[in-house]
Amino acid sequence: MKEVKQYIESNKDRFLEELFSLIRIPSISAETEHKDDMVRCANRWRELLLSAGCDKAEVMPTAGNPVVYGEKTIDPAKPTVLVYGHYDVMPVAPLELWNTKPFEPVIKDDKIWARGADDDKGQSFMQAKAFEFMVQTGQLPCNVKFMLEGEEEIGSGSLYGFCEEHKEMLRADVILVSDTSMLAQDTPSITSGLRGLCYWDVEVTGADHDLHSGLYGGAVANPINILCKMIADLHDENNHITIPGFYDDVLVISDEERALMAQAPFNLENYKKSLSIKEVHGEKGFSTPERTGIRPCLDICGIWGGHTGEGSKTVLPSKAYAKISTRLVANQDFEKISKLFKDYFEAAAPDCVTVKVTPSHGGAAYVSPLEMNAYKAAEKALETTFGKRPIPTRSGGSIPIVAGFERILGIKSILMGFGLGSDAIHAPNENYPLFNFFKGIETIPYFYEYFTELETKKQ
Amino acid sequence: MKEVKQYIESNKDRFLEELFSLIRIPSISAETEHKDDMVRCANRWRELLLSAGCDKAEVMPTAGNPVVYGEKTIDPAKPTVLVYGHYDVMPVAPLELWNTKPFEPVIKDDKIWARGADDDKGQSFMQAKAFEFMVQTGQLPCNVKFMLEGEEEIGSGSLYGFCEEHKEMLRADVILVSDTSMLAQDTPSITSGLRGLCYWDVEVTGADHDLHSGLYGGAVANPINILCKMIADLHDENNHITIPGFYDDVLVISDEERALMAQAPFNLENYKKSLSIKEVHGEKGFSTPERTGIRPCLDICGIWGGHTGEGSKTVLPSKAYAKISTRLVANQDFEKISKLFKDYFEAAAPDCVTVKVTPSHGGAAYVSPLEMNAYKAAEKALETTFGKRPIPTRSGGSIPIVAGFERILGIKSILMGFGLGSDAIHAPNENYPLFNFFKGIETIPYFYEYFTELETKKQ
Repeated sequence: MKEVKQYIESNKDRFLEELFSLIRIPSISAETEHKDDMVRCANRWRELLLSAGCDKAEVMPTAGNPVVYGEKTIDPAKPTVLVYGHYDVMPVAPLELWNTKPFEPVIKDDKIWARGADDDKGQSFMQAKAFEFMVQTGQLPCNVKFMLEGEEEIGSGSLYGFCEEHKEMLRADVILVSDTSMLAQDTPSITSGLRGLCYWDVEVTGADHDLHSGLYGGAVANPINILCKMIADLHDENNHITIPGFYDDVLVISDEERALMAQAPFNLENYKKSLSIKEVHGEKGFSTPERTGIRPCLDICGIWGGHTGEGSKTVLPSKAYAKISTRLVANQDFEKISKLFKDYFEAAAPDCVTVKVTPSHGGAAYVSPLEMNAYKAAEKALETTFGKRPIPTRSGGSIPIVAGFERILGIKSILMGFGLGSDAIHAPNENYPLFNFFKGIETIPYFYEYFTELETKKQ
Repeated sequence: MKEVKQYIESNKDRFLEELFSLIRIPSISAETEHKDDMVRCANRWRELLLSAGCDKAEVMPTAGNPVVYGEKTIDPAKPTVLVYGHYDVMPVAPLELWNTKPFEPVIKDDKIWARGADDDKGQSFMQAKAFEFMVQTGQLPCNVKFMLEGEEEIGSGSLYGFCEEHKEMLRADVILVSDTSMLAQDTPSITSGLRGLCYWDVEVTGADHDLHSGLYGGAVANPINILCKMIADLHDENNHITIPGFYDDVLVISDEERALMAQAPFNLENYKKSLSIKEVHGEKGFSTPERTGIRPCLDICGIWGGHTGEGSKTVLPSKAYAKISTRLVANQDFEKISKLFKDYFEAAAPDCVTVKVTPSHGGAAYVSPLEMNAYKAAEKALETTFGKRPIPTRSGGSIPIVAGFERILGIKSILMGFGLGSDAIHAPNENYPLFNFFKGIETIPYFYEYFTELETKKQ
């Protein structure tokens, strides 16, 4: 694999141009106006998979946005790696906080700046280019399949059904995913756990029409006031979530395991500085990495009601809304939690309002065992190119479909991501360092080599 | 004044067409894009004042939107009535809840449907047409001045300065205002008190950029969660406002006065039915009319933060916002309350966020003594046309400038409004019954007659 660095050096401008052609398509899955962009982006991916070396590649329909599927079979007896990624991106609002246009990628300070630069166009495209290198240099050691979906940022709704329908086509020994972060450029790590997710839309209704806040204020429930109180009541003074039964299935982590986790480098002062905050804020009794790694949490991802524009309208609104999400940890059943919250929150409504909770989407948490071949292969690959043994970490993020793959396809995933915490994914000014992009392309071929070796030995 | 009914009958179509010409101008003071509409609306008012019988009328500049001023002097020795009204209207969002276009007035079910139909274009225009009747029939008993401002819905910011500058021009014996409601079409009433108002814009900042709710959720403060908690903490379990010192200056109403107020007809079941609510909600120990009439309250008029659009973006936002208002009662100093809240709320912020409170506008409460000539004249005028003695009521609403008139000009106001609680002012589907519009025009001339008599006796 020695010539991988040289191959990257000779082709880097083309790699970036190809990636930019994906980024320039505003494939925002949460906004229906981008429906056509989803199809355009899928078609562009298909072209890129074919040019990278796939024998065949197709844009396949689903109940929602299409899936791009491609494959290269070198020998059916050899192991098969299924690469998973997503071509959809998050919305870009608030646009005024971006320093550049989100869908016009720019390279500045050795980073790519754009929506999707990291999550997940930049990261999944590293997989395509690492694959291209192996094919072009005759070093591909196993069979490869690609599956890129267009609904990851809205819960992968259609991919579950797609997997059910295409179990045989998707048969593989491991699913390889680049959609997570590492600790730092000089501290490689592998995400050994992901949190699950549960998301609800909440609507609180007071009177059946907006009221004058003077004529009715003080006598008729204001749904914003009530919603705020109901949200406030979801946490106690120790920042524990108060929904009865919420923690019932949470695995208690042993003191020993916590001590092991605490060895990962983490500097609280730098962390606070990077966010410009004076203090962190979370569940009493847990450290910051534990709060995102092994503990569930509940966040309001959006809230609105009443007059949100310019000026000072004095209104007592009829309705207030919130988007509420929880992050779940291993062993919490997202469907159980989804119902638990809905029942609890609706019942908690005082008589002066009505509350409607609509479950939006969710997914289970995932844990990747450190003993599996894919983990060992990823560990060795990262050690080869970074010169340091990677640390296993638990991410606070969720890729709900990863637990779905295990359930439906019976295949474990390995989360070999090259992002950084500072990449501002889901936020304005998303970026991806060129170092990480090219280091990813350099590292992935070693994963294939080591994984194929270990799997072949096993047989 | 007998021929007033006949005059209205002969001119009703013209009256409505003239009113509609005002309504069709979208003079929304809270939205800067309507700056030109404010001037257009003021100019149209000027034309209508001249055609109604003013000797002169002018559109006069202020620091903000212009004031329309007109006058007719019949004899400097006679009493002078200064009519006050406003030509600006509230914003119209949410537009989708309107059954008709807000600035295209429609008559249906014997009501005018449009933004401003009642508040205050419909009501202030009754004043112009009652004046026209008296001038045209040679029955105007006193001098009249008109002052129509364009910033009432945003706090009358420029009118205070205008009054300071034009004290001599505005000299009068009473200020006559039609901008309030009566209890019902068969239950005339006079607003003898108004609540004051204090309004703030609140901004809560957590991290300096939006964060991924998975990677940071549970470890970094979510400004929406914190804002909700801070808002929830503004009321205790009895719905008392918890800001220290907030109630210090509130006048305690005697049991006797409360008993008198309780005689006003009020049916809780009908009230709840009219709003489609199961229960009312307010301060413990006070009835619904007391909660809006003699007690202050605190309402969130707007809140927003995070993802408020379609879909389910998982974001931990950097900022959350609210528009918070209190209604004040007699003896509460709005400037003192403004500072009290700002200091309290900013200091209440936990270390994990920063909170910025920007006072927006405010005004003192107002009480109209039942003994003054203007009150007695209004009482008798309403009794003449409705056949029933009107009940004095305290409105929960605010017209902050009314307290300002007393302070700056030394003139008391009489609030002789003809709206109904069901007119949906400040809300979608604002309307004004034709009965009330024409009954107002019929009643107002009697006020002039009785007021002039009483004032002349006094001299």
